[in-house]
Amino acid sequence: MSELNLATVSGVLAAYAEGKIKPATFLQQKLDDARADNNNCWLSLLSDEQLSAYVAALEDKSAADLPLYGVPFAIKDNIDLADLPTTAGCKEYSYQPTESAFVVAQLIAAGAVPLGKTNLDQFATGLVGTRSPWGAVSNSFDASYISGGSSSGSAVSVATGQVCFSLGTDTAGSGRVPAAFNNIVGMKASKGRLSCSGVVPACKSLDCVTLFAHTTDDIERLLAIAGAYDGNDCYARPLPSTSESYLPQQGLAGKTLGVPKASQLAFFGNESASELFAESLQQLSQQGATLVEIDFEPFLQAAKLLYEGPWVAERYAAIQSFFEADSSRCLPVIETIIGGAQGKTAVDAFNAMYKLQAYKVQCDAILAKFDAIVTPTAGTIYTIDEVNADPITLNSNIGYYTNFMNLLDYAAVAVPAGFQTTGLPFGITLFADAWQDGALLSMAGQLQQAYGFNLGATEMALPPLAEQAEATAEMVELVVCG
Amino acid sequence: MSELNLATVSGVLAAYAEGKIKPATFLQQKLDDARADNNNCWLSLLSDEQLSAYVAALEDKSAADLPLYGVPFAIKDNIDLADLPTTAGCKEYSYQPTESAFVVAQLIAAGAVPLGKTNLDQFATGLVGTRSPWGAVSNSFDASYISGGSSSGSAVSVATGQVCFSLGTDTAGSGRVPAAFNNIVGMKASKGRLSCSGVVPACKSLDCVTLFAHTTDDIERLLAIAGAYDGNDCYARPLPSTSESYLPQQGLAGKTLGVPKASQLAFFGNESASELFAESLQQLSQQGATLVEIDFEPFLQAAKLLYEGPWVAERYAAIQSFFEADSSRCLPVIETIIGGAQGKTAVDAFNAMYKLQAYKVQCDAILAKFDAIVTPTAGTIYTIDEVNADPITLNSNIGYYTNFMNLLDYAAVAVPAGFQTTGLPFGITLFADAWQDGALLSMAGQLQQAYGFNLGATEMALPPLAEQAEATAEMVELVVCG
Repeated sequence: MSELNLATVSGVLAAYAEGKIKPATFLQQKLDDARADNNNCWLSLLSDEQLSAYVAALEDKSAADLPLYGVPFAIKDNIDLADLPTTAGCKEYSYQPTESAFVVAQLIAAGAVPLGKTNLDQFATGLVGTRSPWGAVSNSFDASYISGGSSSGSAVSVATGQVCFSLGTDTAGSGRVPAAFNNIVGMKASKGRLSCSGVVPACKSLDCVTLFAHTTDDIERLLAIAGAYDGNDCYARPLPSTSESYLPQQGLAGKTLGVPKASQLAFFGNESASELFAESLQQLSQQGATLVEIDFEPFLQAAKLLYEGPWVAERYAAIQSFFEADSSRCLPVIETIIGGAQGKTAVDAFNAMYKLQAYKVQCDAILAKFDAIVTPTAGTIYTIDEVNADPITLNSNIGYYTNFMNLLDYAAVAVPAGFQTTGLPFGITLFADAWQDGALLSMAGQLQQAYGFNLGATEMALPPLAEQAEATAEMVELVVCG
Repeated sequence: MSELNLATVSGVLAAYAEGKIKPATFLQQKLDDARADNNNCWLSLLSDEQLSAYVAALEDKSAADLPLYGVPFAIKDNIDLADLPTTAGCKEYSYQPTESAFVVAQLIAAGAVPLGKTNLDQFATGLVGTRSPWGAVSNSFDASYISGGSSSGSAVSVATGQVCFSLGTDTAGSGRVPAAFNNIVGMKASKGRLSCSGVVPACKSLDCVTLFAHTTDDIERLLAIAGAYDGNDCYARPLPSTSESYLPQQGLAGKTLGVPKASQLAFFGNESASELFAESLQQLSQQGATLVEIDFEPFLQAAKLLYEGPWVAERYAAIQSFFEADSSRCLPVIETIIGGAQGKTAVDAFNAMYKLQAYKVQCDAILAKFDAIVTPTAGTIYTIDEVNADPITLNSNIGYYTNFMNLLDYAAVAVPAGFQTTGLPFGITLFADAWQDGALLSMAGQLQQAYGFNLGATEMALPPLAEQAEATAEMVELVVCG
């Protein structure tokens, strides 16, 4: 019998399989716990009646039938769930969807049970988690600190053990920064791997639905289900046959990783984060990876295009009629950012795309020499008060290592990498070309095992990789039966 | 000894190899002939001294050393040649390049000799060949008719036998329409196959350098040389290992081709063109292809985005400072078209890209069922006077089958398909997904052999495919030596 670990997908499935929990009582308890949440994670939660319908649907099924049988999850509130309104973090924008987003529907069909919709930076515009009319989502380790955004509630609901996994979105880092700030894994798979049908767009050509969970094993399981190809999302792409498999035991051995040279790293005065990044490089090296310094400048130049360039026009296009009717219904900071699109011409848009394409050629050439590039996920973290005092610049600092990713069509995984002297988590990101999702997740999985931190903000221990557990079980069997 | 055919690349190379011609005299004769051109093909030609430098460079070489030894060619005047100014069809825009375009340099390094720069629709904006301050390029079969554009001079210089091949460009059909109107082959290979470094952009994200020649064998030879990867063109793409080979003897047998259903074909009142298209389908069928009707609507919808949508902003971006300083230096029709970009916003640009992406998913799904889709290259042809009287609408009619191609990232080859009752040529286009260049050229090659028309507007017979000639030679050898 395995140890009870109800924070992870695999742990909950094992508990169901072993008869230790039942959907009706377990899920009701999770919903009650979520209602008592202290981090401002939720914008809406299921009613008891709504939960009962999900429980009823599981009645004649078991963990053997459904790969996500009775696993509770959270949904960022820019992704449709038929039961609850979608607000995108703006009350006046709110609408009641008639059906769930494609990805949500896949997860529910696999047995997962959504508890509710999570708080976010309004219209997914921000990396801080403070830009919400419902108030900031507080960090799961220290309530005076930001949670990171824009998928703030989704990350914190996982980190605090309220759900086993959650859905976020990522256009500029929103699926990675809050993972780093809350000691969990955040996967921004290749653009088009997870459908964006039923998602309020931020930048439609760049948006990705993302996964937060405690382990890479859980992410791998979720990717396989949520990643069904959706012919109705024009940016969806079928998984190519050449995509890399998830093999975490061999994740780092023999791999060559690029690292930005020291002068191109930015920690914004956070010495502790700087030291933790150096330690993470040692850890990667001890696990068998070879580290090579790279010129990070073209990536940083590409990143600048996102907010200085015309892509903000995508955010404008996403809510054009709402914005034009009365833009004051947005938070002031959001109104300022999205309103910035108004001066941009189509000529500006194409000129910026030419610049991006030129950077992409340079970045691709660098990336082609490596299995992945490793950076901090964010160079520092701020308190909620600090961000409120200077919302644009500090947000921009946090995106230093994330803003280029979607523009350049890369895949990325954010993974925990230690704790700062303040006690707040630090994380690193591994990124590679599109469709290297499995290889990235493998590297992250091995690194996570090497560190062996407890899960999120819980006191639950990191479980071994399924591969390892199976190997151990086989060995036990050999010894017993041999 | 082979029959002398100095219209084709392979014919000229054979003549050199057999000692029948020498560069100094042959090329001087070609230059003198070009100076006597009657179709208004040329905007500038080499001086005798400039030609001598090319001849001198060939002196210690032979057709065995250089794959294009002493082969004369023409260059559309939006592509740089170090010897002559680049005008892009606008005297006031003209500049003297310090080096040749990447593609031109590849061809010259392989022994090819440029005779001069050819007339075009100003800034490559048009499909008619009349939009030039130097006057219209006349059709090689009937001087009262248009030559097609924008690569008008390049196509006619090949069709009239003044050069063996030429370079054009293609953004909306400019490398295909003039091929159809002058009974030659026009190849718009996959975007990024031929470098655009040293080319005045029309729509930089869509532009392709194209090849005009008399035979698919010649095009194949030229593609291999001109298609060297250029790391300095950010839109260049290396040839993928999965790209299709050129095997014209098996070009059509067993292939399945999509054909727009009858109600979606447009011939603009030209009955003869309609009949010729029907005959071409019979011919394709006789050569072993299976024809299946398709819904052509999504392709037509995508096409409309090109001129009705924001892509005209790329044309504006290409000449922004020149245009803003004094737009009246453009021809009125060009000033009107390019000036149309001024009202377009970045929001318009992104909204149109979303529409295009949605059409692309639909079009790709249709295309995935076929080896290629076959259409007329243009549904009709007009006289120069007709086009002058109604320059926008008639130009638009001519682009009915071509405007979607570059937007959708497809490869296409335009191939002769008969003569209208007026005596003017008709042509069809085969198109497929990017990197199907070899497969498309193979189909075109077999079709061309089946038709067996004389070359361009010359009285020269179509030579057999090299494959066939080799097979015959081997058989002769077998008989002689066996």
